[in-house]
Amino acid sequence: MTDALRRHDPAIRGFASDNNAGVHPEVLEAIILANGGHQPAYGADDYTEHIQRVFGRHFGEQAATYPVCTGTGANVIALQACVPRWGAVIAAESAHAYLDEGGAPEKMAGIKFHPVATPEGKLTPELIDREAWGWGNEHRAQPSAVLLSQSTELGTCYSPAEIRAICDHAHELGMLVHMDGARLANAAASLDEPMRRFTADAGVDVVSFGGTKNGLLLGEAVVVLSPDKVRDLDYLRMMSMQLMSKMRFISVQFEALLSGDLWLRSAAHANAMAARLHSAAREIDGVRLTRPVQANSVFAILPREAGERLQKRHRFYVWNERTGEVRWMCAFDTTPEDVDNLAADLAAEMRKP
Amino acid sequence: MTDALRRHDPAIRGFASDNNAGVHPEVLEAIILANGGHQPAYGADDYTEHIQRVFGRHFGEQAATYPVCTGTGANVIALQACVPRWGAVIAAESAHAYLDEGGAPEKMAGIKFHPVATPEGKLTPELIDREAWGWGNEHRAQPSAVLLSQSTELGTCYSPAEIRAICDHAHELGMLVHMDGARLANAAASLDEPMRRFTADAGVDVVSFGGTKNGLLLGEAVVVLSPDKVRDLDYLRMMSMQLMSKMRFISVQFEALLSGDLWLRSAAHANAMAARLHSAAREIDGVRLTRPVQANSVFAILPREAGERLQKRHRFYVWNERTGEVRWMCAFDTTPEDVDNLAADLAAEMRKP
Amino acid sequence: MTDALRRHDPAIRGFASDNNAGVHPEVLEAIILANGGHQPAYGADDYTEHIQRVFGRHFGEQAATYPVCTGTGANVIALQACVPRWGAVIAAESAHAYLDEGGAPEKMAGIKFHPVATPEGKLTPELIDREAWGWGNEHRAQPSAVLLSQSTELGTCYSPAEIRAICDHAHELGMLVHMDGARLANAAASLDEPMRRFTADAGVDVVSFGGTKNGLLLGEAVVVLSPDKVRDLDYLRMMSMQLMSKMRFISVQFEALLSGDLWLRSAAHANAMAARLHSAAREIDGVRLTRPVQANSVFAILPREAGERLQKRHRFYVWNERTGEVRWMCAFDTTPEDVDNLAADLAAEMRKP
Amino acid sequence: MTDALRRHDPAIRGFASDNNAGVHPEVLEAIILANGGHQPAYGADDYTEHIQRVFGRHFGEQAATYPVCTGTGANVIALQACVPRWGAVIAAESAHAYLDEGGAPEKMAGIKFHPVATPEGKLTPELIDREAWGWGNEHRAQPSAVLLSQSTELGTCYSPAEIRAICDHAHELGMLVHMDGARLANAAASLDEPMRRFTADAGVDVVSFGGTKNGLLLGEAVVVLSPDKVRDLDYLRMMSMQLMSKMRFISVQFEALLSGDLWLRSAAHANAMAARLHSAAREIDGVRLTRPVQANSVFAILPREAGERLQKRHRFYVWNERTGEVRWMCAFDTTPEDVDNLAADLAAEMRKP
Repeated sequence: MTDALRRHDPAIRGFASDNNAGVHPEVLEAIILANGGHQPAYGADDYTEHIQRVFGRHFGEQAATYPVCTGTGANVIALQACVPRWGAVIAAESAHAYLDEGGAPEKMAGIKFHPVATPEGKLTPELIDREAWGWGNEHRAQPSAVLLSQSTELGTCYSPAEIRAICDHAHELGMLVHMDGARLANAAASLDEPMRRFTADAGVDVVSFGGTKNGLLLGEAVVVLSPDKVRDLDYLRMMSMQLMSKMRFISVQFEALLSGDLWLRSAAHANAMAARLHSAAREIDGVRLTRPVQANSVFAILPREAGERLQKRHRFYVWNERTGEVRWMCAFDTTPEDVDNLAADLAAEMRKP
Repeated sequence: MTDALRRHDPAIRGFASDNNAGVHPEVLEAIILANGGHQPAYGADDYTEHIQRVFGRHFGEQAATYPVCTGTGANVIALQACVPRWGAVIAAESAHAYLDEGGAPEKMAGIKFHPVATPEGKLTPELIDREAWGWGNEHRAQPSAVLLSQSTELGTCYSPAEIRAICDHAHELGMLVHMDGARLANAAASLDEPMRRFTADAGVDVVSFGGTKNGLLLGEAVVVLSPDKVRDLDYLRMMSMQLMSKMRFISVQFEALLSGDLWLRSAAHANAMAARLHSAAREIDGVRLTRPVQANSVFAILPREAGERLQKRHRFYVWNERTGEVRWMCAFDTTPEDVDNLAADLAAEMRKP
Repeated sequence: MTDALRRHDPAIRGFASDNNAGVHPEVLEAIILANGGHQPAYGADDYTEHIQRVFGRHFGEQAATYPVCTGTGANVIALQACVPRWGAVIAAESAHAYLDEGGAPEKMAGIKFHPVATPEGKLTPELIDREAWGWGNEHRAQPSAVLLSQSTELGTCYSPAEIRAICDHAHELGMLVHMDGARLANAAASLDEPMRRFTADAGVDVVSFGGTKNGLLLGEAVVVLSPDKVRDLDYLRMMSMQLMSKMRFISVQFEALLSGDLWLRSAAHANAMAARLHSAAREIDGVRLTRPVQANSVFAILPREAGERLQKRHRFYVWNERTGEVRWMCAFDTTPEDVDNLAADLAAEMRKP
Repeated sequence: MTDALRRHDPAIRGFASDNNAGVHPEVLEAIILANGGHQPAYGADDYTEHIQRVFGRHFGEQAATYPVCTGTGANVIALQACVPRWGAVIAAESAHAYLDEGGAPEKMAGIKFHPVATPEGKLTPELIDREAWGWGNEHRAQPSAVLLSQSTELGTCYSPAEIRAICDHAHELGMLVHMDGARLANAAASLDEPMRRFTADAGVDVVSFGGTKNGLLLGEAVVVLSPDKVRDLDYLRMMSMQLMSKMRFISVQFEALLSGDLWLRSAAHANAMAARLHSAAREIDGVRLTRPVQANSVFAILPREAGERLQKRHRFYVWNERTGEVRWMCAFDTTPEDVDNLAADLAAEMRKP
């Protein structure tokens, strides 16, 4: 019997982030299943071998999947594979890799970003062109890849056609396309499209596929879709400190997530909870919803004092200190009651003088 | 019910590495305990707060603990904290961080090594002095830290007095001391000493503490013992792509490992299995045991053909292709029968012409 | 007698850049003076020792001067000294180090920039505050330094009071201030102030001092003004590949430049030529001058065809392909006739249909 | 008239290093010739264009030449072009880039070295094989290039056949070959071979060609000999902070050096002076000459006290503090009298009790 003690109340859920949730029971069951006995380390196990096929069903047979520890790790590895030593990445200035990863891409891999201001976190060919210039000029870090986030940090999604247009444009210009898919499943659920439709089929060269935010204990994966152009991931993963020894326990989680429809059930549920919250909130006077709700997050501006009072009862983040915009994020385990309670408390706070 | 399937035989164990083992049942139980509900991400949870005290009991109250994903990550973070941009690290040329981490220290953090040839993987003040020179000479990457492995890659351990002597020497020369403790528990079991005795009390400034090889699913920790000299680990961990979001599940494993005596039971058992194997093997004609057995690994040279035949029945590594030296590694779940079977098969192979 | 041949027409000067000019005769004379015999390499020579005092007269006794090869090198070294491994630099998005150095700061030193859009290339405390936030949040590369360019890429200058305000603000926030002074002499001439007034006396911690654009053959210098806060430049210069062996020949150029008033004569002359060009151009119909002329460059928008025709007779750059803005840069050797010829030809081109 | 003053005695020469010498008069004359008027910066000038052909005559028509500031810069650029992000370089442990460049390769470019102990600083295919292993194993930084020094740090030279054998071996193993030719001219003079014979013709892929040690003011060059395999040097040079603006003044020095026979005259003279010193020294009792003299340096072991007394009259370095080995280096301007004086003083010191 373990010496560890339960130290939290499992009945409490908040809206701070989908990574505040725990492990989906089916995923936990899979971890237990993979335990016992010995399996080769560092990905030479039977589970990791198997998930190559599992990912292949979602992303095409050519897909090569490399489980890693963190989303930042996935992004930095993928970008290193896309960008030569002298290259740069065009990204929305709201992109997580540019904004919120502690400078890991620059510091660990020397990646230079050419950031672009975007509406709703989405690039377009025209926006890309603002930074897609200077080839052959050695004074300019050469634009070599485009980074898209699907869904974006602002809870919006690209359509398959939008992605296709971006990929075509990038490829014509000699750039590769990396998709940060920390919430790729939420985008798929929102678009009601198989993941392949807006990744491999749309021209994306490599994806950071997020598992942790969708119910895994820990697990992200770099999924290479253009193996002839995006190479040597084995070496890049190791040198990027992202090669886990007991990888069977990561891979089996992906099997649990992606073999059946758990990925979609969980993501669709989280999205539905965000939609429910959005519907409730827009009826509340004084709350201004600031972004389209296309995935599992809701953004709003409300009076700062109301927000602060609400934070005493519900966990969520102020997204932008200057504007007072807040973010409510739903997870696979957010319940309708959680949403209704938040909405009711929000309405109550807004009624206060 | 999970869609994942069991894909391996949990009755099969090998001698390839302690990281081929799975998760200790008490650790798995702890993970289950920590599930459910929401907890703040990135280490702001109750479990991570708690393990500060748990580690403090083993390493002293001043210890500051930072869970990370991989041992390579732990080493690279610790070295970045010990070494200025222009610094270098003196290490045994057999050190894992120098030899087997894909160049991560150099590539991710610009760490220069000054490697030293050592007998049995152990440094001494005298061996350190071979590279401890050139201060003030800008043409020489300045020796700024010493890296010790405890236990070493070669299965040997430093005594507390040996570590004390090294730390005193390093400190006099203005260098910090980092201990790669991927198998620190095995060393403690072997020395029959509390971990503090040969880390904080002996002058070590920062430790990479290994959990995975001692029965965790995944979990390493950078444990800072000289917080006034080894700083800013929060930032270094994040930018090194090692900050996990659902950290409660890592921390609770450490609680399971370190609150009681699981860490010691498991390590002592693995050591005992190595000793048992050593005792059996030394009775077998033609097998030359090449290293003292002070932790959980046994090194031997045997005829190449006998080794290759034995590998068909038992998993283990050829450690040195040139000399034909092999390594047998025991884990927390290695059984006496496993050892006896290996020894019997080894004896049988050695009898063949 | 040398085997080299003269391959260019020394009577031809353009307006492409002040670094298209050659070596000022007094500087060349100094190089010749320093030749012959042996002198210790790597800065241990008598000339390099002497210029410590020469720079001290301009920047204060505490100044510590490190000659380097290139302006990019100077900036990258200075930023490494200002910024911890996990830090970031707030800079105008038009800053040369951010925009035009091939990503050297990111790629060589892992420097993350937080760029700010500015009018005329100049930061203010308020503009700095747009990016001066997130301290203690490990997900944000910590703002650790502010980079100012004096004069700016857009030919504007900060007043001493403006710099004082920025430095005070930065220091209150715990950030250091680095000044990219590739054209510091032009700023001094424009402001009619000693260099010390708007560097050390205003709170600047370290300067990249430019010599090449002001008549040296080759020579930049990192001038440390806060030696207690900006340290270890010797090591940083060497590891940044900027330590020249025959440094006497670099240092003696700085002596020629800075012992007397050559630096000021040359810079004031270049500025005067820019002012002359500005005066002439503003009289020409259809030429829109786009920036204040406070140093040695003039920016203008003119019809693209007129610009292209003019480029056939005079060398200059299109500064912004999108807007068609062009830049005319004057050097220490630009003559009034050069300016008048350019203006006349410009007027002629503008008169064409 | 310059404000700079002569601060040294041009009649004094030492044996510390060939980079303590000044500028060869023919080189200085060439610099003067290239002055005046404007020339495009950053290598777009007529002189830099011309030296492509000049280098082509020495290294083959395919050679592509990139002037840079420092030898360390040349090495780091060349290695970046030879080695993927995940790669490593096999080098003699006495190689300058491994030992004496302040960790620049590791720190600026993430280059991992696999050092090899060598007799006299020279690799062989067999010695390379000590580190040429582990391909496909992601835990090992992949050996991707071999670095040779010609002449070596220890004053020895590879024959064309030795280099051919190494290049063939490296290429068979999929590695490129980089030659650090800081003293390539000395090797050519010693071998009495055109430089091409032991570089391009022998299979070397890229050379760091040294000018400064052979009479230039400042100037090194990366000379690419396999342009299909060693690419993108323009970008790598810029991001490595080695792109000089007034490059005409560097290129014209190379023209002076390489158009005629200045390079060979100077190198052969320096070599002859070393040979003269070697001949004299070997006659002196108690002086043990420790290395073959194949270029312009002489190594010897003599009693420490004698060495220290001699250093009061002549500048030279103790090469190895442990063994007391000293180095005497000759330059293009070392005179027979300089050598004879040193030898006489050495003999006198050795006669003292």
